[in-house]
Amino acid sequence: MATNTHKIFGINGSYAVLSSRKYKISDIIIQTGSIAERDGRISRILGHYGGYVRFLPKIQFKQKFGDFRTQGIVVIFSAEIETTLPKMDSVEGNHCLLILDRLEDPQNFGQIIRTAVCAGVRGIIIPKHDSCKVTDRVIQISQGAFTEIPIYEVNNIHQTIDLLKKEEFWIVAMENSIKAKDWHKIDYKGKIAIVAGGEGKGIKKIILDNCDFQTTIPMQGETNSLNVSAAVSAILFERLRQIS
Amino acid sequence: MATNTHKIFGINGSYAVLSSRKYKISDIIIQTGSIAERDGRISRILGHYGGYVRFLPKIQFKQKFGDFRTQGIVVIFSAEIETTLPKMDSVEGNHCLLILDRLEDPQNFGQIIRTAVCAGVRGIIIPKHDSCKVTDRVIQISQGAFTEIPIYEVNNIHQTIDLLKKEEFWIVAMENSIKAKDWHKIDYKGKIAIVAGGEGKGIKKIILDNCDFQTTIPMQGETNSLNVSAAVSAILFERLRQIS
Repeated sequence: MATNTHKIFGINGSYAVLSSRKYKISDIIIQTGSIAERDGRISRILGHYGGYVRFLPKIQFKQKFGDFRTQGIVVIFSAEIETTLPKMDSVEGNHCLLILDRLEDPQNFGQIIRTAVCAGVRGIIIPKHDSCKVTDRVIQISQGAFTEIPIYEVNNIHQTIDLLKKEEFWIVAMENSIKAKDWHKIDYKGKIAIVAGGEGKGIKKIILDNCDFQTTIPMQGETNSLNVSAAVSAILFERLRQIS
Repeated sequence: MATNTHKIFGINGSYAVLSSRKYKISDIIIQTGSIAERDGRISRILGHYGGYVRFLPKIQFKQKFGDFRTQGIVVIFSAEIETTLPKMDSVEGNHCLLILDRLEDPQNFGQIIRTAVCAGVRGIIIPKHDSCKVTDRVIQISQGAFTEIPIYEVNNIHQTIDLLKKEEFWIVAMENSIKAKDWHKIDYKGKIAIVAGGEGKGIKKIILDNCDFQTTIPMQGETNSLNVSAAVSAILFERLRQIS
């Protein structure tokens, strides 16, 4: 869990990073005349970061960051985003964790972080190896949502599931198998950890065997399978429906 | 509604295009030694397209298509993907259409096409202007799902909604307003058209006022809003739950 330098573009993401006050800001670069410069929320928060703000004319800004949809703002910051999973035995009531096993695509990971925050998930667990890391692209796609949810990096998902079981979590695997019940026939109340697998490979068999339930979303199309981030969205909001 | 030349990469997407037999194939380029060349489904279907297949050594293939995750296959085809909305008055039972008003991001559009197919939506309606078109990027992200669902291009969403109402569709707008009911408190049975708005701008007011119901997914996070494709997924699968 190292401290890394990250970059985030755009008004929403930059605002989330600046307002979270969790990270060490090293640079805030604004394009003069951009919509970021005119944005009220951004202007107000920049008041607190006086020494860190630099303005660049459009040409220079585009030369440096031209390939991205920046809206005219870039924030450079240092952060230790992945943290260690704490004890969860004092947790009570409806409490949902999301475990991502072998997810590879940063687009999906960023999107899932954003969806998880919106669906009230309390933490995301990823393995140290064989999995997409919290890269700048992930951060960008999450639109700053990574500032609102802990991302726990663990050495071994299998052992983590054992631990969570001892702490009275029920473990639900998203897996299309004959054992799987339809996604809305699972009881998501209480302490729940939902496991989603990677885009191509799915969930490791040893991990799957360690889960309490398997759930699936039956497909209506001929050839297509649902994208993992869309499937996660469907399941997390079904949980929210059940507990609301 | 013009016939355009399109390009699709990857095994799933290419297979969907080749097996749909709806489009005029002009070129199938395979990288020798790639996973596409070894893929059983691809090999079998290529038997029907003998004259169109070209093999390229890795270096040349990468020179031509290097920037993309191709898996070693590219299909070039001509298609008139957008079609005209037919009369829907003979439609019966549970029948869901999706209307996208002012969607801008090809990533979201492609993802929504894929989700819609998996959730049993019967057609997607987009406006002719001010909206993301079915570009190659959209096609790519849909992973070939565009072959399984009609995409109707209309001149005027407002008039289309009037028409659908006469054909006994109920119109549900996804909009975060005081009028909106929670997404799981809407009745999605029967003939339904769900309207989703663009990433920044949402649904046009004149269109919103013409809808029968408004629905929203209340956010759990502090600053974040749900991505439109994740919201569409949650709502389409809630519909599927209700009718299953």
